[in-house]
Amino acid sequence: MANKNQFVEQIADIETDFAQWYTDVVLKTKLVDYGPVKGTMVIRPYGYAIWENIQREFDRRFRENGYENAYFPLLIPMGFMTKEAEHVEGFAPEVAVVTHAGGEKLAEPLCIRPTSETIIGTMYAKWTESWRDLPVRMNQWANVMRWEKTTRPFLRTSEFLWQEGHSVFASEEEAEEETQKMLAVYAEFAKTCLAMPVLTGKKTEKEKFAGAVATYGMEAMMHDGKSLQSGTSHYLGQNFSKAFNIKFTDKDGTQKFGYTMSFGVSTRLIGALIMTHGDARGLVMPPVVAPVQVVIVPIAAKREGVIEACVRLKDRLTAAGVRVVLDDSDNSPGWKFNEWEMKGVPLRIELGPRDLEAGKLLCARRDNFEKTEMSLENAAEEIQALLKRVSENMYEKARERMNTRIVTKDSLEGILEGVNGGNFVRAGWCGCRACEDKVKEFAQATARVMDGDHTEKVCAVCGKKSSATVFFARAY
Amino acid sequence: MANKNQFVEQIADIETDFAQWYTDVVLKTKLVDYGPVKGTMVIRPYGYAIWENIQREFDRRFRENGYENAYFPLLIPMGFMTKEAEHVEGFAPEVAVVTHAGGEKLAEPLCIRPTSETIIGTMYAKWTESWRDLPVRMNQWANVMRWEKTTRPFLRTSEFLWQEGHSVFASEEEAEEETQKMLAVYAEFAKTCLAMPVLTGKKTEKEKFAGAVATYGMEAMMHDGKSLQSGTSHYLGQNFSKAFNIKFTDKDGTQKFGYTMSFGVSTRLIGALIMTHGDARGLVMPPVVAPVQVVIVPIAAKREGVIEACVRLKDRLTAAGVRVVLDDSDNSPGWKFNEWEMKGVPLRIELGPRDLEAGKLLCARRDNFEKTEMSLENAAEEIQALLKRVSENMYEKARERMNTRIVTKDSLEGILEGVNGGNFVRAGWCGCRACEDKVKEFAQATARVMDGDHTEKVCAVCGKKSSATVFFARAY
Repeated sequence: MANKNQFVEQIADIETDFAQWYTDVVLKTKLVDYGPVKGTMVIRPYGYAIWENIQREFDRRFRENGYENAYFPLLIPMGFMTKEAEHVEGFAPEVAVVTHAGGEKLAEPLCIRPTSETIIGTMYAKWTESWRDLPVRMNQWANVMRWEKTTRPFLRTSEFLWQEGHSVFASEEEAEEETQKMLAVYAEFAKTCLAMPVLTGKKTEKEKFAGAVATYGMEAMMHDGKSLQSGTSHYLGQNFSKAFNIKFTDKDGTQKFGYTMSFGVSTRLIGALIMTHGDARGLVMPPVVAPVQVVIVPIAAKREGVIEACVRLKDRLTAAGVRVVLDDSDNSPGWKFNEWEMKGVPLRIELGPRDLEAGKLLCARRDNFEKTEMSLENAAEEIQALLKRVSENMYEKARERMNTRIVTKDSLEGILEGVNGGNFVRAGWCGCRACEDKVKEFAQATARVMDGDHTEKVCAVCGKKSSATVFFARAY
Repeated sequence: MANKNQFVEQIADIETDFAQWYTDVVLKTKLVDYGPVKGTMVIRPYGYAIWENIQREFDRRFRENGYENAYFPLLIPMGFMTKEAEHVEGFAPEVAVVTHAGGEKLAEPLCIRPTSETIIGTMYAKWTESWRDLPVRMNQWANVMRWEKTTRPFLRTSEFLWQEGHSVFASEEEAEEETQKMLAVYAEFAKTCLAMPVLTGKKTEKEKFAGAVATYGMEAMMHDGKSLQSGTSHYLGQNFSKAFNIKFTDKDGTQKFGYTMSFGVSTRLIGALIMTHGDARGLVMPPVVAPVQVVIVPIAAKREGVIEACVRLKDRLTAAGVRVVLDDSDNSPGWKFNEWEMKGVPLRIELGPRDLEAGKLLCARRDNFEKTEMSLENAAEEIQALLKRVSENMYEKARERMNTRIVTKDSLEGILEGVNGGNFVRAGWCGCRACEDKVKEFAQATARVMDGDHTEKVCAVCGKKSSATVFFARAY
């Protein structure tokens, strides 16, 4: 029974058809389902619990950085979008528009927020009077809508959930520093909570947020070597403060425009962790955000005392803050092993009569399939320590993969060869749009972020002096 | 300074102009602001923190009752709404409609969810196959939209935040029992977390949810004697399961339609707590959901050791799980007292050089203005106990007010006199719509809920045999 894994048979092969593997896994583990409207998703409880864990972890980090949560309206007057020229150009083609409400045609169409710089900027302009009101730091957890042609659950959907932080500062320096700081918060979160290594850096003009002075992003390498943009932090300069009149009276009594920045991550992060850690058997959940961290599977469950011992263990683990499920269903242990493996639960505990007698339990890791015996007595502490090791090991494994798959090239052909091999390609770039477009055309790769370590002095495309070393990759 | 209260001067008199008092208080304490689109609100950090506390308390209760959180799409195809005849009739006039998206006109208009029975029902139909899949219990925290003509922050806004629970059962009995159970969860929450007494009971046909077999509601009495519907639980029978094809194969092998129910509370609860507890000086926050439970105001803050002692006290209270703010701003103590009073913080601690010498602190209650001395050493425990007493006292005070303002009447004139006096009026009712409409016309009062204690045997309007004793009131 344990050998014949019907669950694995249900999902496509991860190496030969990664796209189908992804679809199979997200549907069969009940993370998500397709919504009735094209491009929308339903986030099912097993998927939503990941999001709640992500929210909790971020909320703590944002609060430590001075952020307060607030909520701004879903609907934005179309006229707001047009106040910042680049912004409307970037987002107008993707907005969903409300033209009728309450049985009447609206005087002005309203758009469903694709992002909230414009409406939050309008409110900040009203609330900000003096330098004493600065800095302003707020965060919002919300749904946003961007009408997309090609969609995939979590990765690209017309509606998605996200957080967007929006800040105003009196000076350029502070706003720029905050942009970097929140990017660093994202990268630390990715490492600690998702066991996901990322590259961080500045985006090119082509890839930046519509309306930003500069966008910084974090990019993660998926199982197939493609990149997934997993979070962005934008320095907006005075572009939005001038468009929305966010002014303050400075200490010297003069009126000045503030400097703003914004940053966001979305339910895309769920797609990122699936495609970073998943394997042939299905999901592999990073312990910090796993909806279920430990599953207890009773062995010979009908034997006296087994279920009772499992319940006691479950209660002790729960009391210690571990998210644990006892699978006391009628299915066979083998069936349960395979199901919980597909769902990616980090640790599986097997507990049967012989273990009970010996005062022990058997614990199997999802990340490397290692089995460890541990004493029942110290289970809570040992399990917590083991969860930590699982997370660290998952991170190291992903980091090693990423590091071995970063190659440096100095020609268009080299870039093509690199990305064809499932790599991120470091290459010098002169800074011009034409060369960036050529890489896209020739290698179907885009500039993900610039490398802080600018070693490549010549543009891989045109051979002229380079202004940056860029990570090129195919991307989701 | 402490006598000249500039804060109280900013807000209208609660007894003579309650409507203006409400508007003044919610704006000046920065709970909320008006959004740019008519009828929308911006929930500012001080208001949103209340909502987060409400969410946390409910999430625990829902989980204990078997609910899991999920997220369903914002946009619902118009055709879904029309599948349940009563439902579309009730909600169609209020929906906001998306007609264009991604730069194109949509083939079918989409409505922004006014509630999610139709879209959740569609998914449940897909997921529910066997009796083994039942019961299904899910909850969603989301924004919804109902286009309203007359709006007021928190009480009635075109967009609001809420939770909606949706369940499917195999039998009528289970679904009805769940409807009552979740209503009881609401009432317990109102008492424990909002210190708010409520009346619960069945709604009349006229007042029930569009598409429900029966709606049960909880109603709270506001400062002015008007009623605020604060939560509803709907028994939906097979109305939605038949409209959306939510079927399951029962143990006997036959296909049956499920029985569904739903329940919801919204950001309206914030309006409810404001209008239940507020007084001439502003907000009075119930401790369990108060964003700030304790404010520490240093006295003679520049004297040696005062600020340090305040910081130590703050850290100890925080470690004990108390939400505490140390106001070390440059404002005078009197200014601070008044500001935090308007913001309704349950407890204020004053700590100065003399207190420090004596190892004591002075604590002032917001609910009854009593001042207590307590030893600095035991502050954490004493403060926690005091917060509990504040909550209980607020509840008792509100309950007493409600109880003394419930009168029983046996005529239309009596009902008018009763509601004119700011009362809830108990009266017999024959059960016919005509008599209910007459009460509305003559006394501008509506049937809030039916009293489980059916003592009035004659209809107060027509004099015929009554079928229920109803609480009539003017309502928000």
